[in-house]
Order: sequence, then structure tokens, then C-alpha cells
Amino acid sequence: MIRLLALFFARQILANEVTDPTDENPVLVGPEAPEEETNPLTEEIFSSWALFIVLLLVVSALWSSYYLQQRRVKSIHETVLSIFYGMFVGLILRVTPGHYIQDAVKFNSGYFFNFLLPPIILNSGYELHQANFFRNIGSILTFAIPGTFISAIVLGVILFIWTKLGLDGIDVSLVDALSVGATLSATDPVTILSIFNSYKVDPKLYTIIFGESLLNDAICIVMFETCQKFHGQAVSVSSVLKGIGLFLMTFTVSLLIGVVVGVFIALVLKHSLIRRYPQIETCLVLLFAYESYFFSNGCHMSGIVSLLFCGITMKHYAYFNMSRRTQIATKYIFQLLAQLSENFIFIYLGLSLFTEVELVFRPMLIIVTTISICISRWCAVFPLSRLINWTTRAKHKGGPSAINYTQDEIPPNYQMMIFWAGLRGAVGVALAMGLQGEAKSSLLATVLVVVVLTVILFGGTTAGMLETLNIRVGVIDEQESDDEFDIEAPKPMQLNQIIPGTTPVYSIYSDAAGSRSRTGSQQSFYNNEDEDAADAPPDMNDDEMTSDLDDIPPMANQAQSSKINLQSMSFNNLLSMDDHAKWFTHFDEQVLKPVLLDNLTENNNSKDKIED
Amino acid sequence: MIRLLALFFARQILANEVTDPTDENPVLVGPEAPEEETNPLTEEIFSSWALFIVLLLVVSALWSSYYLQQRRVKSIHETVLSIFYGMFVGLILRVTPGHYIQDAVKFNSGYFFNFLLPPIILNSGYELHQANFFRNIGSILTFAIPGTFISAIVLGVILFIWTKLGLDGIDVSLVDALSVGATLSATDPVTILSIFNSYKVDPKLYTIIFGESLLNDAICIVMFETCQKFHGQAVSVSSVLKGIGLFLMTFTVSLLIGVVVGVFIALVLKHSLIRRYPQIETCLVLLFAYESYFFSNGCHMSGIVSLLFCGITMKHYAYFNMSRRTQIATKYIFQLLAQLSENFIFIYLGLSLFTEVELVFRPMLIIVTTISICISRWCAVFPLSRLINWTTRAKHKGGPSAINYTQDEIPPNYQMMIFWAGLRGAVGVALAMGLQGEAKSSLLATVLVVVVLTVILFGGTTAGMLETLNIRVGVIDEQESDDEFDIEAPKPMQLNQIIPGTTPVYSIYSDAAGSRSRTGSQQSFYNNEDEDAADAPPDMNDDEMTSDLDDIPPMANQAQSSKINLQSMSFNNLLSMDDHAKWFTHFDEQVLKPVLLDNLTENNNSKDKIED
Repeated sequence: MIRLLALFFARQILANEVTDPTDENPVLVGPEAPEEETNPLTEEIFSSWALFIVLLLVVSALWSSYYLQQRRVKSIHETVLSIFYGMFVGLILRVTPGHYIQDAVKFNSGYFFNFLLPPIILNSGYELHQANFFRNIGSILTFAIPGTFISAIVLGVILFIWTKLGLDGIDVSLVDALSVGATLSATDPVTILSIFNSYKVDPKLYTIIFGESLLNDAICIVMFETCQKFHGQAVSVSSVLKGIGLFLMTFTVSLLIGVVVGVFIALVLKHSLIRRYPQIETCLVLLFAYESYFFSNGCHMSGIVSLLFCGITMKHYAYFNMSRRTQIATKYIFQLLAQLSENFIFIYLGLSLFTEVELVFRPMLIIVTTISICISRWCAVFPLSRLINWTTRAKHKGGPSAINYTQDEIPPNYQMMIFWAGLRGAVGVALAMGLQGEAKSSLLATVLVVVVLTVILFGGTTAGMLETLNIRVGVIDEQESDDEFDIEAPKPMQLNQIIPGTTPVYSIYSDAAGSRSRTGSQQSFYNNEDEDAADAPPDMNDDEMTSDLDDIPPMANQAQSSKINLQSMSFNNLLSMDDHAKWFTHFDEQVLKPVLLDNLTENNNSKDKIED
Repeated sequence: MIRLLALFFARQILANEVTDPTDENPVLVGPEAPEEETNPLTEEIFSSWALFIVLLLVVSALWSSYYLQQRRVKSIHETVLSIFYGMFVGLILRVTPGHYIQDAVKFNSGYFFNFLLPPIILNSGYELHQANFFRNIGSILTFAIPGTFISAIVLGVILFIWTKLGLDGIDVSLVDALSVGATLSATDPVTILSIFNSYKVDPKLYTIIFGESLLNDAICIVMFETCQKFHGQAVSVSSVLKGIGLFLMTFTVSLLIGVVVGVFIALVLKHSLIRRYPQIETCLVLLFAYESYFFSNGCHMSGIVSLLFCGITMKHYAYFNMSRRTQIATKYIFQLLAQLSENFIFIYLGLSLFTEVELVFRPMLIIVTTISICISRWCAVFPLSRLINWTTRAKHKGGPSAINYTQDEIPPNYQMMIFWAGLRGAVGVALAMGLQGEAKSSLLATVLVVVVLTVILFGGTTAGMLETLNIRVGVIDEQESDDEFDIEAPKPMQLNQIIPGTTPVYSIYSDAAGSRSRTGSQQSFYNNEDEDAADAPPDMNDDEMTSDLDDIPPMANQAQSSKINLQSMSFNNLLSMDDHAKWFTHFDEQVLKPVLLDNLTENNNSKDKIED
């Protein structure tokens, strides 16, 4: 492997030396790009090598991931390895004389926003556990909106004060400090998704952290844009209010764009015969989803939010109007693109530490910033958790199921994990590329190093932290077992299979849940679902289940082997959501689904089959 | 639709006007790219609009394709429509004041070679009918190697003489004229694949034209590179010999790289447990294939040839070591990527007619070049067809099956179709971007217009030509019916299903074939296979079939409904190849498959099941 790499770099140097110096790499615009004519063929050679190296790194990362999973190594995570691989190759590229490949593999924010981020967000929306997401929407929005504001402002103010002390010799205005604050408040959906998915963390915690990190990118982008508009001006109260108004508008409009595109796809699929041409159908579904992202970005809205909700809407409606082939193809393709993008991003981050030429590293600033992001995260997570817990208690006070309010609260170990999971990601780096002013090179270097540090420090210790905090891991991910099922023909349902979220057993396991979770057994997910289901009134849709499920065998024995048609079950899960979602569920079933779904009777049949 | 477009362009103009003029688009390197600092957020807006517009065009093209297929419109082909859509939007972009989006959607040869071309080539190799390809390898190589040389030289000489007449006022050296000749000799795999696939043309003709167009790109690239090395020098005999030697070396090494990578993938899949992690497995298969392309290009070899043979080798060996999920996922993903790339390319060609700013259109030169490519193609196709027919007759003279030699010949209507199918494609345009010298803008414009003209003229009349020449269309494509089958569980085989290539009925339909083909019925493919199979000695592997197949019902009734496990059948087809491939088949079965395939016994079992 090392020898192979050495060979490639030897070739690169050789190629650089023999080639015309007017050549320019086509995949990169840099300020140093020469103005001369380009030769596509020589360009092609260099971009080929650049792509070869990057792909080789992705292959190495994927292979390491396989190896780690195969050997059940939990202490090192593939994302950390990806960054180190990137750094290693970046260092080699830095010390080799040629600069063509080095330029080509530099972090490019255009690539990041247009090619690497969308597949991850789309796949997140498509694979999202909708019931869990909407059940925790209150906590998610609390952490995402006020949390990010608090974090950005605390961080910005600390940085502003530090630079005013003059120890580093750089001068940063308050607006620029707040810009950096916004940049470094974007907790990363990529890292969280990747690490938590592989540890199969308890869905509630997973959903809160993942949901927050998905949504707060939008806020950070809008905050950053707003700050940059005031670059060189003084901050006033009206500009703060304007920023808040802008954010709320952006979020709402972006969400609507995503939902409208999702509904549009469902209607197109319903009212055309395109399912007869599944190849074209698959392409169109993918393209429409991307259109929502680019349209939203083009309108100065948040493409991330649009794409996320487009994915959710597609999975909820359009998915059931697709041909079977397209259902399978979209799942596989979204997953593949997301997996590749994730690995690309981490490698890119590692590479860019050495291939960015304009960086000015200031150790003191980096240390201060690293400490500050911990402080700002602390200020956001713990007070807001208390607020959420206080609100929950107040809501449940005097209600009939007062004994169960604890399941809506965020326990101290979850709070600590939410704090710990605030890794910063590539979105921050991409944003920091847009900084202006003379301090740019210092600030960009700081952001880059801090992001890599958080991924290595927090990401690398996530496994240990999960154990220390007694957080349940190894919970079955419904979507994954779904994949295995997809390629087989539908099986007749067995009566004694478990249907999460519809079990009417009221919290009978809630005392035992704590001790079971410590063993990390895979049954805990279902226990959790039982607890959640306890909130739903018994008349909701569980009537048919009650008689059959009283005599089911112990759940743990079947949790692994049960292969159920989980598409239909996500509907069931949605039905068993909390009271506050009841109106939507009703509206969805009575109005939206008849309008949007083609084969509604078929879906009902399959649902009936499960509930038999 | 039109209103929507108008809205977008209005927005674009608006956005251009309100934005900082220092903004630069990140997806484009142009000589006019300003040297100033870039703002990723504003960049993102413009690249978002650019991508939105391009994707919208792809959506329109795909929707038109669906509509045309749905209404059974044969006179207009989607590729022609794609070009027109591209031209229409390119024209609008040209007349709108802003230049950012115009720059972003310009034809970029780096994008073309690194992102658009590989998926198409990979999918071609993966979906290639291996038996047909290797059965016609003689004809394919004849047209690809000497044919391209003849075409390039004839075209180059005509152009050189024309420019020397001085009517257009441009001065082109012989080397540059030969470069343009090479550029315009690259018949396009994209167009041919797309048009012939949708008409389901007779596999033999399809294979020859498709194989030629795939391989001749490599030759054109090498010829072009060689010519450009001698730019500004006089042509000598030694440089011609050097070019020929370089070509042969390139072709062989590229082929070996592809095969080695394919075998490597098969071995990795066999000797690891990676099939337990199908998501990683799918990514790795895709990445390894791409590595062969970039490695080969990086070594100054032909990535196209490597990727093509990597795809073929993967399908022949590695495919059978993959998990079922990966088999399905790779097929769907390769198909999706290829379909999207094809549509992108045509739209790009149309767009670039108006968005390339440096073009100098010389009508006389364009007309002369258009006539010249017809002459040069004529000089290549017809003499070489005679040579092939003459060789075939000489080979079969005195042989036992002298009556059947006609099936190896290329009849006059096929010759005409090969001439007609010589559309020029995007490879030529991408190459022409590498032209040097003061005549570049004229020559590039000429190449671009001629390419678009050939696609519109020849591509648009292909349907009519197929009818005029009495060429069989509507032949079942095995690979497509395969897809439908893939997502279901394996069915037990029925004895009376048709297995092409193994039917031992000796040419009993050969008299009727002509009249049947004129009706365009789908049974003709099987007749053709019968004729082909007649060459194979009866003892080869057809023994078990003979008794069962004598009493099968008429084929036409079953052609549509028969769903056979065609993976296993491609092996059968390979077994029934001509005598000259017998040694390889033997070596393959006895040595390569036991070494490379994991579940050989399983494959044999499934084959036995079919032959029962």
C-alpha cells in the first residue's frame, strides 16, 4: 500500500516536471490560476491523478471500516481514520514539488455544497425515522434555534474579547467574530450520523442530536450570511431583529419548498404511467429531489432544510406510488451516494489541513477557540435542557399519565451526551471560506484546525463516553433490517411478530428498562417503544392488536429474527405518536393520502394484513 | 414550463445585478476568471442556478423520452430533443446580460472526461452482451483501428487542401488538420448506444457499431495527442510509425489494466467477508472500477478501454462473488449514472453552441467539413466491409459449414447503416478544446457545429434509415428483461422456455427470417441466435436441450413473457461461441472460474437447473 502510494507520487513528480508549465487543473479555481490557455489532455492527466488519489483514500477508509466492523473494534472510528488518511496524504502532497494535484484536492466549498452535502441530507430525510423525529420535534427545535443562537453569540463574544487583548496581534471586528461564532456553531450532521449509526444509539437521543445538527446548519448559514452583510459596519439592535426575521422566513419557506416538491413528485407519479419505465422514473425522482435543493439555494433559502423535508415527504407519500424497482433503486442509490460523500468529506478535511496554502496558524487562538466552543456549547445545552424538562413537567402536571412524563424529559446523561456530540463539521469549514478581511487566513486556519480537533477528540471518544454515561447502544435500526427484506418477495405475516409503537402494554417494562439497557441488549428499543406508546390513548388504532399481543412470547427472542414489512409499520408508528400530532395524523389519513397515494387500498390491505 | 423558465432567468438577471461584481463561479475555470477573492455563499447561489437549469433540462429530456415512448413516437429521438433543449436555453442565457450562469454551464472537458464519460463506458461494459461482442471482435477491430486511421487521414488531408485554397482566410498546418481529422473521427458511443438501444436493433449490427464507437475513441485520443506533440513541426514517416506503435502499446496496456482490476475485484470479493456488509461492498466495487479509469488515464493510457474491459471482466467473474444486494445495486446504480450522463452530455452540447464565447463560425469551412466527414467515413466503411467479407469467404471456403458463411458477412444494408451511424459525439468536442494555435476558435466552432449537425441529421434520420434499409428492429434486449426479473425471488425454470444460443434447430427459420424482420416482430432475435448457433458443433452443450425443444410452442407468443435467469445464460451463450473462442472458453471454465469464483458449484447448479 505504502509502496503503491510512493510509486504514484514519484509518477506525479515526474509528470509535473516533464509537462508544460502553462497547464492548469480544470477542477479548481484558485486565485493563483494562470490566465493562459489550457490543454484538456494534460489537465486530464492531473485531474485523473487527483481523483485517483482521493478515490484510493475513500477505498482505504471503506476497507478500514469493514475491517473494524469485522474485528468488532469499537475504540477507533472510521471517520477519525479517514481524517488521518487525508492528513497523511495531504502532508505527502505538500512536501512533493508539484502543485497541480495539491491544488486539485484542496477543499472547494462549491463542490462541498453542490455535490457532497446534498446526498447526505437527502438520504437522512429518506431514511429518517419519521415517528421519532416528530415525537421529539420540540426538543430538536429548542436545541436547533435558540441553542445555536446562544452558542454563536457566546463564542463570538469570547473571540472578540480575546482578539481585543492583542496577544495574537490580529484585529477582528465584532461582526467577524460573530461570523466565526456562527461558523463554529454548525454541529455536523455527517459525523453524528456516521458515528451514532454505527453504534446504534438509542433512537430518542439519536433523533435529538441528529435533528439538531441537521437543522442548525440552516441557522448557521443564515446567521453567517447576515453577519457578512454587516461586514465593516457596527452591530445594532435592528440588524439583530432583521437577522431573526430573516431566519424565520428562510426556515419556513425552505420547509415549504421541500414539502411542495415532495408532494409534486407524489402527484406526478400518481397521475402518470411513468412507473412503466422504472429507469426514467428513478432518474426523475432523484433529479426532482436535487431540484428542490438547488432551487431553494438559488432563492437564497436553505437547501438543506428543503432537501431534508423533500426526502421526508417523498418517503411518506411518493414512495408508495413508485414501482418496486424504483423503491429499491432509490434506497440503494441514496445510501451509496451518502456513504461515498461522507467518506469524501472526512478525507477532504484531513487533506485540506495541508493542501490549503493560505493558512496562518496561530496556536493561542486555536487553543482559545477550542476551549470557547466547549463553553458556548455548554451554555446552549444545559440551560435549554432544563427548560425542556421544566416545560415537560409543567405540561404533564395533573394529566392522567403523570407517571410517564419522565420519558419526555432529557436525563442528565443524555444532556452530557448532547454536549459531547457537538462536533463541528465540514459545513463550518465551507462557510469559513467566505470570510472577508485581512484576518481571513488566520480565522480560516483556526476553524479548520478546531473542526478537525473536535472530530478527532469528541468523535474518537464517543464510544467511551456512551459507555461512561450508560447510554443504550446496539439498538436495532429498523431501516437497516428493511434493506435485507427489500430484495426478497413479500412473506406472509406471522401473528406473533412484534410491531413497535402499537403494543398496548402500558409501561410494564419501564422499571426493568434501566437494568436491561446496561447490558446493551437489542430488546431495549422495543421497550422504549412501549413506553412511548403508553402516551397514545388506547382507542387510537391498537384495538385489533390487544387480543393477539397479550400472549406473544418474550420480545427479546424475536427481535433479531423478525422481518416485518416495515414500510407499512412506519405508518403505524406515526399513528401512535403523541397527542399533539393527532390532528395531522387524522388529516393525513383522511385527506392527504387519498389525494396523493395511488394504491391506497393496497396499502390499507397490507396494513390490515399486519394487523390481522 | 416556459413561464417557469422565464421566471428563473428574470431572477438570474436580478441576482446578477444586485450582487458584488467580484463574485466568481466555482464550477468553471475560464481564461476570463477574475483573480479576486471569491465568496462561497454568492458562488453557491450562481452554481445553484446553473445546476438547477441543467437538471431541469435533464428532467425535460427524460420526461420527453417517457412521453415519446408512451405515445410510441419513433420519428423524433430524445437525444435530438436534448440538444434542442440545450440550444434553446443556451440561446436565452446568451441574450441575458449576466455571464455567471453562462460561464457555469459551458462545456468543460475536465467534467466530461472525469464525470460524464466514465459511467457510460462502465455501464456499457457491465451490460455488454459478451457473446455477441467477442463473436464480432474481428469486424469491430477492423472498423475501429484501420477504419479510424483512414477516416482521420482522409478528413485531415481534405481540410488541409481546403484551407490552402485560402477561401476562408485561415491557415492550418497539416498537423493541425490531421488533429481535427482525429477529433472528428471519434464516432460517439453515447449517441449510438442511446438510439440503437431504444430501437432494439439487431444485436449483430448493434454490436459492431457500438464496439467500433467504443474502441475508436481510444484511437482518436491517441492520434490527437500524437498530432499535438508534433504541433509546429513537419510530418515525417518516423512520426507516423511512432504514432502507430504508441497506439498499439496504449491499447494493450489499457486493456490489461482493466482486466487486472476486474480480476482483482473478483479475488477481493472471493477472499474477504465483505459481502456481509453490502453497503460497503457496493461502494468498493464502484470505486475500484473508477480507479481503473483514473489510473489508466493518469498513466497516459486510455481510460475508456480500461474501464470497458474492467466492466466486462467484473460482470464475467466478480459479479458472481457479490452479495445479491450488491448485484442489484451495482446494476441499478450503473444504469442510473449512465442514463443521467447521456442526457447531460447532449444537453451540454446544445448549450455550448451558444455559451462558448470564443467561437468563430465560418460557414464555408463548416459545410466543407460536413461533406468531408461523409467522404472520409465512406472511405473507411465500404472498403473495409469488402475486406471483411472477402476474408470471411476465404476462411469458410472448403469448410464443412460453407453454407453458413453468409452470417459472418456484412450485407450491403448493414454497411450502409454502419456508414450512417457514424455520428460524431462529445468526445470530439472535448478533444477539440485541446487544439492549439491561432485557428483554434474557428476549428473548435467547426467541430462543435459539425458534431451537433451529425447528431441531428444522422441521429434524427436513424429510424427512417433502419426502415429503408430493412434492418431488424424491436429485438428483445436480454439485459432489460433481466432487470425486471432481478427484484423477484428465483423461480423454478419451465422446460418450454426459450434459451437463445443453445437452440439446436439448424436454420429452419432462416428463409422466413427476412419477411418476419420486416414486421418488426420480437421473435427475430431468436431466429438470429438460431443461425449463429448453427456454427457451433452439436456436441457442444446442447444435447440436453434437443429433446425438449422440438415440441415448444411458437416462439413469438412467449418472447414477451419468458423471464429466464439470464445471468446463467450469458455463460451458455459464451459457450456456444464460434470455434475460435473455444480455447478461451475451455481455459475459462477449467482454470479461471475455479480460481476467481467463490460459489462455482452454486453457479453450476443453477445452470444445470436451466438445462434440465
